[in-house]
Amino acid sequence: MSKQKKVKNMKPKAETPKGFRDYFGSEIRVRNSMLQKIMEVYHMYGFEPLETSAIENVDALGKFLPDIDRPNEGVFAWQEEDSWLALRYDLTAPLARVYAQHRNKLPSPYRRYCMGPVWRNEKPGPGRFRQFYQCDADTVGSSHMIADAEMCLMLADSLEATGINRGDYIIKVNNRKVLNGVLEKIGLFESNDLQKCAEQRGIVLRAIDKLDRLGASGVKDLLGKGRKDESGDYTDGANLSDSQLSLILQFLGAKSETNQQTLKNLSYLVTGSKIGEQGILDLEKISESTEAQGYGVDRVLIDPSVVRGLGYYTGPVLEAELTFDIVDEKGLKRRFGSVAGGGRYDDLVKRFTGQEVPATGMSIGVDRLLAALESRKSSKITEQGPVIITVMDRDRLNDYQSMAVELRRAGIRSEVYMGNPKNFGNQLKYADIRNSPIAIIEGENELEKGEVLIKDLYLGAKLASEMTTNEEWKSQPAQKTILRKNLIVELENLISKYKN
Amino acid sequence: MSKQKKVKNMKPKAETPKGFRDYFGSEIRVRNSMLQKIMEVYHMYGFEPLETSAIENVDALGKFLPDIDRPNEGVFAWQEEDSWLALRYDLTAPLARVYAQHRNKLPSPYRRYCMGPVWRNEKPGPGRFRQFYQCDADTVGSSHMIADAEMCLMLADSLEATGINRGDYIIKVNNRKVLNGVLEKIGLFESNDLQKCAEQRGIVLRAIDKLDRLGASGVKDLLGKGRKDESGDYTDGANLSDSQLSLILQFLGAKSETNQQTLKNLSYLVTGSKIGEQGILDLEKISESTEAQGYGVDRVLIDPSVVRGLGYYTGPVLEAELTFDIVDEKGLKRRFGSVAGGGRYDDLVKRFTGQEVPATGMSIGVDRLLAALESRKSSKITEQGPVIITVMDRDRLNDYQSMAVELRRAGIRSEVYMGNPKNFGNQLKYADIRNSPIAIIEGENELEKGEVLIKDLYLGAKLASEMTTNEEWKSQPAQKTILRKNLIVELENLISKYKN
Repeated sequence: MSKQKKVKNMKPKAETPKGFRDYFGSEIRVRNSMLQKIMEVYHMYGFEPLETSAIENVDALGKFLPDIDRPNEGVFAWQEEDSWLALRYDLTAPLARVYAQHRNKLPSPYRRYCMGPVWRNEKPGPGRFRQFYQCDADTVGSSHMIADAEMCLMLADSLEATGINRGDYIIKVNNRKVLNGVLEKIGLFESNDLQKCAEQRGIVLRAIDKLDRLGASGVKDLLGKGRKDESGDYTDGANLSDSQLSLILQFLGAKSETNQQTLKNLSYLVTGSKIGEQGILDLEKISESTEAQGYGVDRVLIDPSVVRGLGYYTGPVLEAELTFDIVDEKGLKRRFGSVAGGGRYDDLVKRFTGQEVPATGMSIGVDRLLAALESRKSSKITEQGPVIITVMDRDRLNDYQSMAVELRRAGIRSEVYMGNPKNFGNQLKYADIRNSPIAIIEGENELEKGEVLIKDLYLGAKLASEMTTNEEWKSQPAQKTILRKNLIVELENLISKYKN
Repeated sequence: MSKQKKVKNMKPKAETPKGFRDYFGSEIRVRNSMLQKIMEVYHMYGFEPLETSAIENVDALGKFLPDIDRPNEGVFAWQEEDSWLALRYDLTAPLARVYAQHRNKLPSPYRRYCMGPVWRNEKPGPGRFRQFYQCDADTVGSSHMIADAEMCLMLADSLEATGINRGDYIIKVNNRKVLNGVLEKIGLFESNDLQKCAEQRGIVLRAIDKLDRLGASGVKDLLGKGRKDESGDYTDGANLSDSQLSLILQFLGAKSETNQQTLKNLSYLVTGSKIGEQGILDLEKISESTEAQGYGVDRVLIDPSVVRGLGYYTGPVLEAELTFDIVDEKGLKRRFGSVAGGGRYDDLVKRFTGQEVPATGMSIGVDRLLAALESRKSSKITEQGPVIITVMDRDRLNDYQSMAVELRRAGIRSEVYMGNPKNFGNQLKYADIRNSPIAIIEGENELEKGEVLIKDLYLGAKLASEMTTNEEWKSQPAQKTILRKNLIVELENLISKYKN
C-alpha cells in the first residue's frame, strides 16, 4: 500500500519490465506470415487448432522445467484467495490439462496444434526474453511410433514451408528409454541410494546436453571429477568410475551415418536392459517409418546426444537443428543450432486422471526460427508504407480524407497526414519514416488546375543517395504533376513498380 | 510452501481457473478469419501493427479501469523483487507506454493497430471471462478531429468487413467535454467541496451510462434520492437538486435525428461553459468530417448518452452498437448492444513524459462481435475435418502413412487413424467426431485387387438420418470401391461436392 502511494506521486517509467520487449510493424507481419505457413502444414496433416487461456492453476502446470528445484520457480505465479495461479511456461502442460478436462467430448486420438506466447520467469539476458512464442502440434492418445515419426515429417515440412532449405536443417531423434537403459547398465537408473543416484543422473543428463557446446572432453570432465569453465567457475562432476564413464562415451559415440548402424551400436550397449531394448525397438520403428516416406538421414537422423531439458519426456525425443553457420554478436562464426524440439510424454495426462494416456508432440521456437530466416536474408525487408496525402491547406482536411477514402476503395493503402501540417518538411519526413512509396500534394495551384503533384519517394531517395547530376535526374524526375482524374491509374502504375 | 507440499501428494484438478476458458477448432479459425478482415481494414487505412508484451510494470498501466478504487484491483498483479508486475487490462495503456518509451524512433503521428488478449481480475460470471481479445487502432500525436472522425469511418468499415450489414449497427459519438460543460453548469465540475463533487460526478456518470438498461426514470432515481433494483438492493443517488436534475435530463434528451439539431440542442445547454463549448466545436468537426465522406447518421450519430467507463478519456468518445435483436439465455428478446468503443485520451502519454501528446483510438471487443456474428447465422458452421485413412492391417501403418503423404501432396487434408485399430467402429466414430467427409479403407482384399474402398461419411450420415429404404439408397450408395490409382481424382470430386 505504501508502495502504491509513493508511486502515485512520481512519473511511471516508460519501459517494459526486464526481459520483455515490444514488436513493431513488419516484424509482426513477417512472423505472422511464417506462423501461417507452419499452421497450414499442421492443418494439412489433420491437426486442429486449440487455444487455452494464458493462466492456469499452478498445480495443473506441474514442475517440469529444466533445472528447476524450488516450487514455482521458473513460472510467473501469484496467489488468488486459496489457490495459486500462473502463466503457462509452455503449450504442452496446458494441453494435458485440456485433454484430462474434456476427454469425454474430444476425439481420441486428439490431434491439435496451438500457437501463442509462453512465459518463463528466468533471469533475462541479451537476446533472452521472458515471453516468447511457441507453435506446437501434438497427438494425444496414440502409442504408435508412427505418431512420433509423423512429428519428424511434419517438422521437416514446416521448416521447408517457412523457407529453410533441405540440407540446412537436420531433425535428430533419440529415446529417453535408450538413455535409461545405458544408465541402468551403469547402475544409475535404480539403486539403493536413490538420492545420490538421482543427483548423478541429473549431472549425467546435463553433461550430455552440453556435448555440442563443450565437446567430448568437456563432457568427460563433467562425468568424472568436474570441470572449471573459462570464467574459473567450477562445476561438480558426476564422479563416475572409469567403466561407467566409458559406457556413456561409447553411447555418445554411437552415432553413425545410417540409422541402422547407429541402432546396431546402441543395441550392443544396452543389451540386457529391458527398457533400453524397448527404446531401440521404438527408434527402429521411427526410422523405418520416416524412411518409408522418403525422409532419409539427410533429414531425420538418430543421434544419441539429444536429451531435451524438459522433465516430462518418457520416450522418443527429437530436436531440429539448423546446420548453417551464422555470425554471432561477437563476430564469431557458429552453427545456428536448435529451433524446435519435442518428444513423447506418456505420463502427463496421468497426473490428472490416474490413467496413462500416451502422447507425443513437438514445438517450434518461433522467435529462434524467425531469427534464422532473417539471418539468411541479404537485407532486412522493410514493408512498403501507405501513400501519404499531405496537408497543404488545413481547412481542406475533409477533402484530403475524401481522397484517402477514394484511394482505399481502389485498394491503395493510404492516409492523410494527421500531425501539425505547418512544417511541410515534417510531412515528408513522416512519409520517409513510414517507408511510403508516394506522397501526394494538392495545394491551391493544383486544385485550381484540376491537378495533383505526386512525389515518387523511393526514386527521390535513390537519386539523392546517388548524389549525381547526371541526365537520369532530368529524364526520371522524382515528382510529376498529373491530372487529378488520373490519380488512381498513376498511383497503381507507380506502386506496382515497387511491389516486392 | 506448506501449500505446495500438500499439493504434491494429490492429483491436480483438470480445470481452467475460474473465469477462463479454452477455445477449440473452428471457433479459433472463425475468430482468426474475422480478425484478419478487421486488420486488413486497419492496414488499408495506413495503420501498422504493434505487439507489446502481456506483462507491464503496474505503475505503467495506471488506474483507469471503470469503478475501481483499490490499488491493483481489476488487474492480475504480483511482486517481483522491488517492483510490481501486472498483466495488461487493455491495449491502450501499453500503447501510451510504448509511445513514451520509443517516441524518438517512432513516426509522429504514430498510427498503430494491435490485436491480442487482455486480462481483468473481475468477478467471473456466466459469459463473463477474465481473459478476452481486443482489436485496437489508435492515432497518437494528432489533435485534429479528423483523426477521431476517421475512427468512426474505420470502425464502420471494419464491422461491415466482418459481415455486419449496414443498418444493423450504429456508431454513437459523444464528447466528455460537453458532459463536463453540463456538469460545470450544475456546479459539479469544480467546487469548494472537491471530495463531494467527485463522488456526485461519479454517480452521475454511472447513472448516465445505465440509460440503455434502466430507462429515463431509473436514471432519474439514481440522479435524485437513489434507486431500489429488482433484487431489492439499494443504490445511493447523487441527490441532485431539481434544477440540476433537469439539466442532466435535458442533456440526455438532446439527441435528435440530425447531428446538426443535436448539436444545436447541446450547444444551448452548455452556453457559457468554455469546456462545454469546446466540446460542441469538436463534435461539429467530427460530424462534418464523417458526413463529408458519406457516412450519414444511419452510421455515425451524435448521442449524449455515451459515456464509456474507462477513466482516461478526455474528449470525444464513441461506441458501436449492434441494433438487431437477439434472444438471450433467458429466452428474452433484447438488443445485442455494444461491440466496440473508444475515444480521445490526451493525457495518457503525459503521465510518463510530462508533455501532452494528443491521442485517439478505438477497440473492438472481439468475443462480443464474434458472438454477434454467430447469432446471425442460422446454424453453427462446423468445419470439414480431414480425410481419415483407416487402419485395417496394423503391420501396414507405414503404407497408410505413405497414402496420407500422397494425399497431402495433392492438397487433400488427411491423416492415418492413430488410435488402437482393433475396433473398426471406433475408427469410424473418430472420423465422425472429426467431421471428416471421407474414410478410406484398404484391407487385404482391396490391396490384392489394387483397389480401395471410400466411404462418403456425409452422405452416409444423411441416409442414416432419413431412415428410409427408398431407391436413392441404392442409386447413391454411401461407399464405393475404386481403383487405387484413381484415388486422388475420386477424392477431389467428392470433397469439392462438400466445399462450404
